[in-house]
Amino acid sequence: MIGQTDETAACCPGLVSAPLGEDQAMELAKLFKALGDPVRLRLMSMIASRAGGEVCVCDLTPAFDLSQPTISHHLKLLRQAGLIDCERRGTWVHYWALPATLDRLATFLKTPQTAETTA
Amino acid sequence: MIGQTDETAACCPGLVSAPLGEDQAMELAKLFKALGDPVRLRLMSMIASRAGGEVCVCDLTPAFDLSQPTISHHLKLLRQAGLIDCERRGTWVHYWALPATLDRLATFLKTPQTAETTA
Repeated sequence: MIGQTDETAACCPGLVSAPLGEDQAMELAKLFKALGDPVRLRLMSMIASRAGGEVCVCDLTPAFDLSQPTISHHLKLLRQAGLIDCERRGTWVHYWALPATLDRLATFLKTPQTAETTA
Repeated sequence: MIGQTDETAACCPGLVSAPLGEDQAMELAKLFKALGDPVRLRLMSMIASRAGGEVCVCDLTPAFDLSQPTISHHLKLLRQAGLIDCERRGTWVHYWALPATLDRLATFLKTPQTAETTA
Protein backbone atom coordinates (compact mmCIF):
# COMPACT_ATOMS: atom_id res chain seq x y z
CA MET A 1 0.00 0.00 0.00
CA ILE A 2 2.73 2.45 0.96
CA GLY A 3 4.73 1.54 -2.13
CA GLN A 4 1.68 1.98 -4.29
CA THR A 5 1.00 5.37 -2.73
CA ASP A 6 4.47 6.67 -3.45
CA GLU A 7 4.29 5.51 -7.03
CA THR A 8 0.89 7.05 -7.63
CA ALA A 9 1.81 10.32 -5.92
CA ALA A 10 4.63 10.63 -8.44
CA CYS A 11 2.37 9.92 -11.40
CA CYS A 12 -0.74 12.02 -10.55
CA PRO A 13 -1.33 15.71 -10.90
CA GLY A 14 -2.95 17.71 -8.10
CA LEU A 15 -6.63 18.59 -8.39
CA VAL A 16 -5.93 22.18 -9.39
CA SER A 17 -3.01 21.44 -11.73
CA ALA A 18 -4.60 19.31 -14.48
CA PRO A 19 -7.79 17.37 -15.29
CA LEU A 20 -7.78 13.87 -13.78
CA GLY A 21 -7.78 10.78 -15.96
CA GLU A 22 -10.57 8.22 -15.55
CA ASP A 23 -8.44 5.62 -13.78
CA GLN A 24 -6.94 8.10 -11.34
CA ALA A 25 -10.39 9.54 -10.63
CA MET A 26 -11.76 6.05 -9.94
CA GLU A 27 -8.97 5.27 -7.51
CA LEU A 28 -9.02 8.60 -5.66
CA ALA A 29 -12.83 8.66 -5.47
CA LYS A 30 -12.69 5.40 -3.49
CA LEU A 31 -10.49 7.08 -0.89
CA PHE A 32 -12.77 10.11 -0.59
CA LYS A 33 -15.83 7.89 -0.41
CA ALA A 34 -14.24 5.99 2.48
CA LEU A 35 -13.96 9.33 4.34
CA GLY A 36 -17.42 10.45 3.20
CA ASP A 37 -19.28 9.08 6.22
CA PRO A 38 -19.40 10.72 9.67
CA VAL A 39 -18.81 7.47 11.58
CA ARG A 40 -15.83 6.48 9.45
CA LEU A 41 -14.41 9.99 9.67
CA ARG A 42 -14.67 9.93 13.47
CA LEU A 43 -13.10 6.45 13.59
CA MET A 44 -10.31 7.64 11.31
CA SER A 45 -9.60 10.67 13.51
CA MET A 46 -9.69 8.57 16.69
CA ILE A 47 -7.12 6.21 15.18
CA ALA A 48 -4.92 8.83 13.46
CA SER A 49 -4.76 11.10 16.51
CA ARG A 50 -3.90 8.37 19.01
CA ALA A 51 -0.62 9.27 20.66
CA GLY A 52 0.73 5.72 20.90
CA GLY A 53 -0.07 5.16 17.24
CA GLU A 54 -2.41 2.21 17.85
CA VAL A 55 -5.96 1.79 19.09
CA CYS A 56 -7.72 -1.32 20.33
CA VAL A 57 -11.16 -1.76 18.76
CA CYS A 58 -12.39 -2.09 22.35
CA ASP A 59 -11.50 1.61 22.83
CA LEU A 60 -13.32 2.68 19.67
CA THR A 61 -16.75 1.11 20.02
CA PRO A 62 -17.80 2.82 23.31
CA ALA A 63 -17.69 6.22 21.56
CA PHE A 64 -20.55 5.21 19.23
CA ASP A 65 -24.15 4.21 19.69
CA LEU A 66 -23.59 1.38 17.19
CA SER A 67 -23.06 -2.36 17.38
CA GLN A 68 -19.56 -3.79 17.19
CA PRO A 69 -20.25 -5.51 13.83
CA THR A 70 -21.29 -2.13 12.39
CA ILE A 71 -18.11 -0.49 13.70
CA SER A 72 -16.07 -3.39 12.32
CA HIS A 73 -17.70 -2.95 8.93
CA HIS A 74 -16.75 0.74 8.83
CA LEU A 75 -13.20 -0.13 9.90
CA LYS A 76 -13.02 -2.71 7.13
CA LEU A 77 -13.94 -0.06 4.54
CA LEU A 78 -11.21 2.26 5.88
CA ARG A 79 -8.75 -0.62 5.72
CA GLN A 80 -9.75 -1.57 2.16
CA ALA A 81 -9.15 2.05 1.16
CA GLY A 82 -5.59 1.85 2.52
CA LEU A 83 -6.25 4.48 5.21
CA ILE A 84 -5.64 2.17 8.18
CA ASP A 85 -4.23 -1.26 8.89
CA CYS A 86 -4.78 -3.69 11.73
CA GLU A 87 -3.54 -6.75 13.60
CA ARG A 88 -5.39 -9.18 15.84
CA ARG A 89 -3.75 -9.86 19.22
CA GLY A 90 -5.67 -12.33 21.31
CA THR A 91 -9.28 -11.17 21.69
CA TRP A 92 -8.92 -7.72 20.20
CA VAL A 93 -7.99 -6.17 16.90
CA HIS A 94 -5.63 -3.18 17.02
CA TYR A 95 -5.73 -0.42 14.40
CA TRP A 96 -3.29 2.20 13.21
CA ALA A 97 -3.36 4.93 10.54
CA LEU A 98 -1.37 4.81 7.29
CA PRO A 99 -0.22 8.44 6.98
CA ALA A 100 1.07 8.01 3.40
CA THR A 101 -2.53 7.74 2.17
CA LEU A 102 -3.59 10.86 4.11
CA ASP A 103 -0.55 12.73 2.79
CA ARG A 104 -1.42 11.70 -0.72
CA LEU A 105 -4.96 13.10 -0.40
CA ALA A 106 -3.75 16.30 1.29
CA THR A 107 -1.22 16.85 -1.49
CA PHE A 108 -3.79 16.11 -4.15
CA LEU A 109 -6.24 18.69 -2.72
CA LYS A 110 -3.91 21.52 -1.91
CA THR A 111 -4.10 24.75 -3.87
CA PRO A 112 -1.43 27.45 -4.23
CA GLN A 113 -3.05 29.12 -1.19
CA THR A 114 -2.93 26.13 1.15
CA ALA A 115 0.68 26.56 2.19
CA GLU A 116 0.22 30.26 2.91
CA THR A 117 -3.10 30.23 4.74
CA THR A 118 -2.54 27.35 7.14
CA ALA A 119 -0.23 26.79 10.04
CA MET B 1 -19.36 29.93 2.14
CA ILE B 2 -15.90 31.44 2.30
CA GLY B 3 -16.72 33.12 5.61
CA GLN B 4 -18.04 29.84 6.99
CA THR B 5 -14.91 28.04 5.86
CA ASP B 6 -12.58 30.48 7.60
CA GLU B 7 -14.58 30.24 10.79
CA THR B 8 -14.68 26.47 10.79
CA ALA B 9 -11.03 26.12 9.86
CA ALA B 10 -10.26 28.06 13.02
CA CYS B 11 -12.52 25.87 15.16
CA CYS B 12 -11.62 22.35 13.92
CA PRO B 13 -8.63 20.21 14.68
CA GLY B 14 -6.80 18.33 11.95
CA LEU B 15 -7.53 14.64 11.46
CA VAL B 16 -4.30 13.54 13.14
CA SER B 17 -4.38 16.09 15.97
CA ALA B 18 -7.56 15.19 17.90
CA PRO B 19 -10.71 13.07 17.60
CA LEU B 20 -13.45 14.84 15.64
CA GLY B 21 -16.73 15.85 17.26
CA GLU B 22 -19.99 14.55 15.82
CA ASP B 23 -21.07 17.83 14.24
CA GLN B 24 -17.69 18.46 12.64
CA ALA B 25 -17.58 14.88 11.34
CA MET B 26 -21.05 15.28 9.82
CA GLU B 27 -20.07 18.48 8.04
CA LEU B 28 -16.69 17.27 6.76
CA ALA B 29 -18.08 13.88 5.67
CA LYS B 30 -20.46 15.73 3.32
CA LEU B 31 -17.48 17.35 1.61
CA PHE B 32 -15.60 14.06 1.25
CA LYS B 33 -18.74 12.35 -0.01
CA ALA B 34 -19.10 15.02 -2.70
CA LEU B 35 -15.59 14.10 -3.89
CA GLY B 36 -16.22 10.37 -3.46
CA ASP B 37 -17.44 9.78 -7.00
CA PRO B 38 -15.21 9.48 -10.11
CA VAL B 39 -17.39 11.70 -12.30
CA ARG B 40 -17.61 14.44 -9.68
CA LEU B 41 -13.88 14.23 -9.02
CA ARG B 42 -13.12 14.62 -12.74
CA LEU B 43 -15.56 17.52 -13.02
CA MET B 44 -13.97 19.13 -9.96
CA SER B 45 -10.46 18.79 -11.44
CA MET B 46 -11.59 20.10 -14.84
CA ILE B 47 -13.04 23.17 -13.14
CA ALA B 48 -10.28 23.74 -10.57
CA SER B 49 -7.45 23.35 -13.10
CA ARG B 50 -8.95 25.67 -15.73
CA ALA B 51 -6.47 28.46 -16.41
CA GLY B 52 -9.02 31.24 -16.84
CA GLY B 53 -10.72 30.22 -13.58
CA GLU B 54 -14.11 29.51 -15.18
CA VAL B 55 -15.58 26.72 -17.29
CA CYS B 56 -18.75 26.71 -19.37
CA VAL B 57 -20.86 23.61 -18.77
CA CYS B 58 -20.78 23.20 -22.56
CA ASP B 59 -17.03 22.47 -22.25
CA LEU B 60 -17.55 19.90 -19.47
CA THR B 61 -20.21 17.58 -20.87
CA PRO B 62 -18.33 16.42 -24.02
CA ALA B 63 -15.68 14.77 -21.79
CA PHE B 64 -18.27 12.32 -20.41
CA ASP B 65 -20.44 9.64 -21.85
CA LEU B 66 -23.34 10.97 -19.76
CA SER B 67 -26.41 13.11 -20.39
CA GLN B 68 -26.32 16.81 -19.57
CA PRO B 69 -28.94 16.42 -16.78
CA THR B 70 -26.68 13.81 -15.12
CA ILE B 71 -23.67 16.12 -15.37
CA SER B 72 -25.78 18.98 -14.01
CA HIS B 73 -26.83 16.83 -11.07
CA HIS B 74 -23.21 16.04 -10.18
CA LEU B 75 -22.32 19.74 -10.50
CA LYS B 76 -25.22 20.58 -8.19
CA LEU B 77 -23.84 18.23 -5.51
CA LEU B 78 -20.39 19.86 -5.79
CA ARG B 79 -22.03 23.27 -5.49
CA GLN B 80 -24.11 22.25 -2.47
CA ALA B 81 -20.90 21.07 -0.80
CA GLY B 82 -19.35 24.51 -1.30
CA LEU B 83 -16.64 23.20 -3.63
CA ILE B 84 -17.72 25.19 -6.68
CA ASP B 85 -20.06 28.03 -7.55
CA CYS B 86 -21.75 29.04 -10.81
CA GLU B 87 -23.54 31.74 -12.75
CA ARG B 88 -25.88 31.50 -15.71
CA ARG B 89 -25.02 33.75 -18.66
CA GLY B 90 -27.48 33.44 -21.51
CA THR B 91 -27.77 29.81 -22.56
CA TRP B 92 -24.91 28.39 -20.52
CA VAL B 93 -23.97 28.04 -16.87
CA HIS B 94 -20.35 28.87 -15.98
CA TYR B 95 -18.58 27.17 -13.06
CA TRP B 96 -15.56 28.02 -10.94
CA ALA B 97 -13.83 26.37 -7.98
CA LEU B 98 -13.92 27.68 -4.41
CA PRO B 99 -10.33 27.09 -3.29
CA ALA B 100 -11.06 27.87 0.37
CA THR B 101 -13.00 24.60 0.67
CA LEU B 102 -10.19 22.60 -0.96
CA ASP B 103 -7.66 24.29 1.31
CA ARG B 104 -9.77 23.41 4.32
CA LEU B 105 -9.82 19.71 3.37
CA ALA B 106 -6.10 19.66 2.53
CA THR B 107 -5.29 21.24 5.89
CA PHE B 108 -7.61 18.86 7.72
CA LEU B 109 -5.93 15.80 6.15
CA LYS B 110 -2.32 16.77 6.37
CA THR B 111 0.00 14.89 8.68
CA PRO B 112 3.36 16.03 10.09
CA GLN B 113 4.96 14.33 7.06
CA THR B 114 2.91 16.09 4.36
CA ALA B 115 4.99 19.26 4.26
CA GLU B 116 8.24 17.32 4.08
CA THR B 117 7.33 14.64 1.55
CA THR B 118 5.54 16.72 -1.06
CA ALA B 119 6.61 19.38 -3.48
